[in-house]
Amino acid sequence: MTGPVAPVSFAPAVRPRIPVGRFGDRLARAEAGVVAAGLGPLLVGVGPDLVYLAGYAAMPLERLTMLVIAASGRATLLVPRLEAAPARACPGVVGGHIDLETWEETEDPVDRVAGLVRRGNVAGPTHRAIADRVAVSDRLWALHLLRLQAVLPGAAFVSASVVLRDLRIVKDADEIQLLRLAAQAADRVIWEIAHGRLVGRTEADVAREVRDRLIAEGHDRADFAIVGSGPNSASPHHEASERVIQAGEPIVLDIGGPYGGYGSDTTRTIWVTGGDATRGPDDEFLRFYAVLRAAQAEATHAVRPGIACERIDLVARELISASGHGAHFFHRTGHGIGLEGHEDPYLVAGNPEPLRPGMAFSVEPGIYLAGRYGARIEDIVICGEDGPIVLNELDRDLLVVTG
Amino acid sequence: MTGPVAPVSFAPAVRPRIPVGRFGDRLARAEAGVVAAGLGPLLVGVGPDLVYLAGYAAMPLERLTMLVIAASGRATLLVPRLEAAPARACPGVVGGHIDLETWEETEDPVDRVAGLVRRGNVAGPTHRAIADRVAVSDRLWALHLLRLQAVLPGAAFVSASVVLRDLRIVKDADEIQLLRLAAQAADRVIWEIAHGRLVGRTEADVAREVRDRLIAEGHDRADFAIVGSGPNSASPHHEASERVIQAGEPIVLDIGGPYGGYGSDTTRTIWVTGGDATRGPDDEFLRFYAVLRAAQAEATHAVRPGIACERIDLVARELISASGHGAHFFHRTGHGIGLEGHEDPYLVAGNPEPLRPGMAFSVEPGIYLAGRYGARIEDIVICGEDGPIVLNELDRDLLVVTG
Repeated sequence: MTGPVAPVSFAPAVRPRIPVGRFGDRLARAEAGVVAAGLGPLLVGVGPDLVYLAGYAAMPLERLTMLVIAASGRATLLVPRLEAAPARACPGVVGGHIDLETWEETEDPVDRVAGLVRRGNVAGPTHRAIADRVAVSDRLWALHLLRLQAVLPGAAFVSASVVLRDLRIVKDADEIQLLRLAAQAADRVIWEIAHGRLVGRTEADVAREVRDRLIAEGHDRADFAIVGSGPNSASPHHEASERVIQAGEPIVLDIGGPYGGYGSDTTRTIWVTGGDATRGPDDEFLRFYAVLRAAQAEATHAVRPGIACERIDLVARELISASGHGAHFFHRTGHGIGLEGHEDPYLVAGNPEPLRPGMAFSVEPGIYLAGRYGARIEDIVICGEDGPIVLNELDRDLLVVTG
Repeated sequence: MTGPVAPVSFAPAVRPRIPVGRFGDRLARAEAGVVAAGLGPLLVGVGPDLVYLAGYAAMPLERLTMLVIAASGRATLLVPRLEAAPARACPGVVGGHIDLETWEETEDPVDRVAGLVRRGNVAGPTHRAIADRVAVSDRLWALHLLRLQAVLPGAAFVSASVVLRDLRIVKDADEIQLLRLAAQAADRVIWEIAHGRLVGRTEADVAREVRDRLIAEGHDRADFAIVGSGPNSASPHHEASERVIQAGEPIVLDIGGPYGGYGSDTTRTIWVTGGDATRGPDDEFLRFYAVLRAAQAEATHAVRPGIACERIDLVARELISASGHGAHFFHRTGHGIGLEGHEDPYLVAGNPEPLRPGMAFSVEPGIYLAGRYGARIEDIVICGEDGPIVLNELDRDLLVVTG
């Protein structure tokens, strides 16, 4: 068949970065959120919240790294002494928004955090018992949280998302640009994989190529490379296996990872014929793929400010259910994306949250016939002022290739 | 100079795996540990504990995956429905040691876990209030732990390490073999990097080559690739930067990642001359490198069953302190390694735990002169019945190369 034209690379020579001053804005908004929510300190461990607030991407390890933000006083980043140099270089510290403290190998960093919390408590003029409610970042390890709970026994611990989700859920222009570059880099990888040799290779071998190409296209890391061929295409989170790809079957490719910190996540379903015209997709597959294609398009077109997340899910689900495949679409329609591959908002039944301009999420319905085959189509979409802004540019029709 | 001979690759054609039956043994020991500790259920989220007990390596995400082990009754692995296929294929389930349950997108998985905990409670003949003390895996995200604490409000939450650390801290022959293969794969990467072009390249470019080579040598992932050149060699956890490597300076290479699930972590310090004989290491560097070399060797030689972890640290520290560099060695001497890059036992002042045969850990003293240069030497060592078993085979003398 005649395929669509290849996506054009427009990866910039210099990758855009979040300006240093932005971290000051984010910290100020987080501090205001702490006050508004009547919270004690925010305790932010290694992970996306720390990247958001300080621009500091450390490896999560047993040595505690923690940003302490009290309603009163300065934000303080406490790090192991041997990580002082990289911590000192992060935008939040470089920009003068965060004080840096280090702890020694023989110290207990949790005691140091408790000290910072108490110091903030004493200094706080507007809060009576500021350490009553301590907010911790969602990705903090239980190892650290249990110890913090032990040294602050009077405090109620809550998720820092109380304050941070509202900040992170709306992306600014720089963040959207990074998400766009990420999406289009993943598009190019899918294109190259779909037009390369596939039949006779193992899924794991193709997944390795996906990972290499994501890095070559500028990704920081390749976080996932789902290559689900034949019956494996019916398992949504299939792990690429040693199965050898056959002519005359579909392959679900679902790939992504961070690019300048912001995630890509693209899924396309292709069909490999092995060059044998009699091994094209059968009628049943074509029928349900057409339903899926329509469901993905309609759900995307429904995106606009004010519409409930669950409503976007319902748009896709109703179309698929009407075709008799309701039971074969057993996951939500989408998830937010940004500094995390999955984050708020979730497009799922039971979530009434209205979309707001700047929200970023996947739209990815799927249909899976267990033991036989399945398909999924996924784009990253921004809620624009006037409707959807689709970041992916790769065609969504079933791509039938030689493989 | 005449360098040592290149390490010989003996990577096996088929990578060894932990036998399926081993997971049954581990689960039985964990269950016995639960009884002995008078604990309620063990709740094990995605992470190394889940790999240890079930052989299930899922991606940590917002959708809860949890192994529930009660003192009475069967172990149950609860996973999102869309991950049923990979979960069903894990050794713990395949071997018949673990029951699999799935939750639907519109269900609350935390409620399902609470139900499993209560079911175990009712069934438990020997425990009065089995849900009084709930043990959770160290890497469980706060997001999940806070919700579990909310649905089990009467329970005290403790770290599952109470039971699991004693199991995981002693490695069996299969685990040691994987650690050995990992160490020697990392050795070969260091060798190749040290003998390739370095001067004129950025640290980040060399780090990319390290990551590619770790994968090519059979690693599952490249988790870290510290390339600290010139003054950056004085920052122990330096992030490879855009700094261009110069002739006449040291480079600390500290690299690793999992290999068949088990970590490598090798550090060597090299000196690049750029081919100019006048740009070799200066006397001060040679002097403190010799001290470091001796400290690393003596600490390694001190390894034997019964010796305290802090004693190994002290052996290295006393030698370095005697040379006047005590203040320049400001991190612990080593950390355990296995399914985690850093795990128990830690070779650090204040840790009296005696070494036992089968414990695996790094021995990695360093000397760092801030703003100038530094050096570190690191091997992975097993505590054998009669003394140290060093898994790395790469020479530890300062490697002076053209670069």
